[in-house]
Amino acid sequence: MEILITNDDGIYAEGIYALATAMRKVGNVTVVAPDTQRSAVGHAITITDPLRVTEAKRNGKFFGYAASGTPADCVKLGIKAIMKKRPDLVVSGINLGGNQGYNILYSGTVSGATEGALLGIPSMAVSLDTFVKPDFAPSAAFAVKLAGLMKKRAVPQGTLLNVNLPNLPAGKLKGVRVTSQSLTCFNDWFDKRTDPHGNTYYWMTGDYEPKDQDLASDLNALNAGYISITPIQFNLTNYKFLPELENWKL
Amino acid sequence: MEILITNDDGIYAEGIYALATAMRKVGNVTVVAPDTQRSAVGHAITITDPLRVTEAKRNGKFFGYAASGTPADCVKLGIKAIMKKRPDLVVSGINLGGNQGYNILYSGTVSGATEGALLGIPSMAVSLDTFVKPDFAPSAAFAVKLAGLMKKRAVPQGTLLNVNLPNLPAGKLKGVRVTSQSLTCFNDWFDKRTDPHGNTYYWMTGDYEPKDQDLASDLNALNAGYISITPIQFNLTNYKFLPELENWKL
Repeated sequence: MEILITNDDGIYAEGIYALATAMRKVGNVTVVAPDTQRSAVGHAITITDPLRVTEAKRNGKFFGYAASGTPADCVKLGIKAIMKKRPDLVVSGINLGGNQGYNILYSGTVSGATEGALLGIPSMAVSLDTFVKPDFAPSAAFAVKLAGLMKKRAVPQGTLLNVNLPNLPAGKLKGVRVTSQSLTCFNDWFDKRTDPHGNTYYWMTGDYEPKDQDLASDLNALNAGYISITPIQFNLTNYKFLPELENWKL
Repeated sequence: MEILITNDDGIYAEGIYALATAMRKVGNVTVVAPDTQRSAVGHAITITDPLRVTEAKRNGKFFGYAASGTPADCVKLGIKAIMKKRPDLVVSGINLGGNQGYNILYSGTVSGATEGALLGIPSMAVSLDTFVKPDFAPSAAFAVKLAGLMKKRAVPQGTLLNVNLPNLPAGKLKGVRVTSQSLTCFNDWFDKRTDPHGNTYYWMTGDYEPKDQDLASDLNALNAGYISITPIQFNLTNYKFLPELENWKL
């Protein structure tokens, strides 16, 4: 199995190292990842600048290709310029921090897997729902298991699996839940400050609403200690609203 | 009507000037837009850097607020830090270049309207499907007409209207079509080059597949000379696939 791995925390992050190391047990792994952290880049691609690719070492050995772009750029580069064979699987992660609910729209991790799915390759995004004391081992082990299942069973064209894990040791995980994307809103606001030169600047900050009414959501599964898998796709058309819009006097 | 306007071509682009000028006839307009071009930024937000806002003039008069961020940042800033009243409408554009099909995933223009929709405000993205000799007047006039309709009729919560116009004079436009997002793929590839110092770099380039089988798609409407309106939403869950995924031995 040819496996392409990317992330948005950058090629020197801990999560992608754990993921690549685990995946090497089940296939030929090629890592193409951003040369620096690219969190919250959404599904960006780089069209106004040239992309540069350099070889990156970790622990003194060749680890993968570092690109001057976003996760989506990295997946395109991996498939169309770097790998000799087309990959059988794209895995993006392991991200430090969950990617659930509307958050997935802003997620570079998810966008790496999205690019794989749009190019017709089975793809998953893997995120660990914590920013402190991450234990990547259970996430890496689950990604390996899921890779095996994806090889045997088909995911629909254009759909990717968005996987989130709570930061629990393997023995404390409650199980796996197939979930839907939470539609709970993120409440954000701006912290307005003045710099030492008297100029105003803003920091964006925020938090999820505390309650999600959808018991089958990714957010609720994670909060209850389950691994969450949400199949997501990118036909955004609101078909239900089409007939009503047809009746507007356009 | 309080109207917030943004774009991704930057506050000094021609398209946002045409849009803001037309919209001032029907409401109080506040412009908050990126200080430079931010095309293909996807639904990115800026969390690792502070955001700066400055006042921008055009033709010697105050025009709006230039922010050091993405279109999504600008809409958040507009609503949560700059405008005194919550807007009744968010309009993003007029973009130079169409935003149809899977292209909308990479679109900064669409992401500005997405942010409005996620914050519960009626929102539209307006794009002109050309890169040469743009005539923004028909797009601006149609945005004003649609703003009036959106005030009278309800768009579902979390849904935005993605509007694309062919670059035709008003008299040559064939009409308006309510469309679905084309699922035709974009074929991209990399142009590999060597810089004057002997280093390799890549330029991303590409094109749409020539045929779209979906006759009701945004792409086909545009190609036939119609204004296209697609209602889009951001619940990405592939509900149809949930039962099958439940049967995997997870």
